Amino acid sequence: MPPPQRRPGGRTARIRRQVLDAVLAELAERGYDGLTVEAVAARAGVHRATVYRRWGDVGGLLADVLDAAGDDAWQPPDTGSLQADLAALNREIRDALTAQPPIVAALIAASFRSEQAEHAQRRLWEDRYARCERVVTRAVQRGELPPHTNARRLLIAATAPVYHQLVLLRTPPDPDLPEQAARTAAIAAAAGAFTEPPPDGDT
Amino acid sequence: MPPPQRRPGGRTARIRRQVLDAVLAELAERGYDGLTVEAVAARAGVHRATVYRRWGDVGGLLADVLDAAGDDAWQPPDTGSLQADLAALNREIRDALTAQPPIVAALIAASFRSEQAEHAQRRLWEDRYARCERVVTRAVQRGELPPHTNARRLLIAATAPVYHQLVLLRTPPDPDLPEQAARTAAIAAAAGAFTEPPPDGDT
Repeated sequence: MPPPQRRPGGRTARIRRQVLDAVLAELAERGYDGLTVEAVAARAGVHRATVYRRWGDVGGLLADVLDAAGDDAWQPPDTGSLQADLAALNREIRDALTAQPPIVAALIAASFRSEQAEHAQRRLWEDRYARCERVVTRAVQRGELPPHTNARRLLIAATAPVYHQLVLLRTPPDPDLPEQAARTAAIAAAAGAFTEPPPDGDT
Repeated sequence: MPPPQRRPGGRTARIRRQVLDAVLAELAERGYDGLTVEAVAARAGVHRATVYRRWGDVGGLLADVLDAAGDDAWQPPDTGSLQADLAALNREIRDALTAQPPIVAALIAASFRSEQAEHAQRRLWEDRYARCERVVTRAVQRGELPPHTNARRLLIAATAPVYHQLVLLRTPPDPDLPEQAARTAAIAAAAGAFTEPPPDGDT
């Protein structure tokens, strides 16, 4: 899920762009602990009062960075096969989580510090997963998957190992993980693991 | 992935126990942001200087809480079937992550703040996943799984969705998720998704 992007607009949009770019630059240089409204305003070349009035505090700034990140035309990969789509998606996630400077990782870390950032991070993920559902819809249409496959559960199963390893476990990156996790989810999906109601009773 | 436990011992061990219990109590009451060496020392009834000398700072205290949590006799579930073992494991993880007060969640959040806590959290997970490998070994011995199944990858695939949903996505808890994630991993494992070398070529 690609790094934040901005769209052109009027003066208010321009100021927002300058301020959010400054947040990203400060975050890249200093991390969350070094992030201040003063430094962001100075770097953006706008009045400190403007930043306080519009964004409130660091949490408000981070939340707006995350909201702006979702305000793009991103679409999931469309390679023609479920497994390859999921693998390409996982590679995007891996690349975002391991990018230098670690902007996405810093935003995720910030979501443990600021409730506003947490809510914005949740909105961003919700939006990304919702867009990804078409990967599953297309696979059902191609006959790769049973109808009534729960798209969200499949997508979570396919992507969770990448997040788990890189964000929480922080084990040395396994280069095969994006493909491995995609393949696992595709195998389970083809076997009906995500169909509703489930093909056999759970205990 | 049960909550921290302590073992009996001599005077040094007793002081450690008092201090670590005080860390947990402070963390439960105030969270990471309210955690101070002074408050921990006062609650434990020991000299502040003792805490500084032995643990250094809040990061050192949290790291020792995590190390102590791994110093137990915990073993993974042994129900007689792979899927039921994984489901029981996932329920333990879910219960730990959603417990009140949110000690485990606070320790994970702290691992984004303190490098010492991060390393200790990694050691704890590494130890827990290593202990869980016997779940897979037993399933191979029972003939439920192909030989040469990569235990760690299977365990990560089975548990990652629970962590992803509860720690990162923070979506409303799905009560079926522990069983669902276990079933998905078991289906994929039985189909050979975790055998090495893989049954078919990856792209």
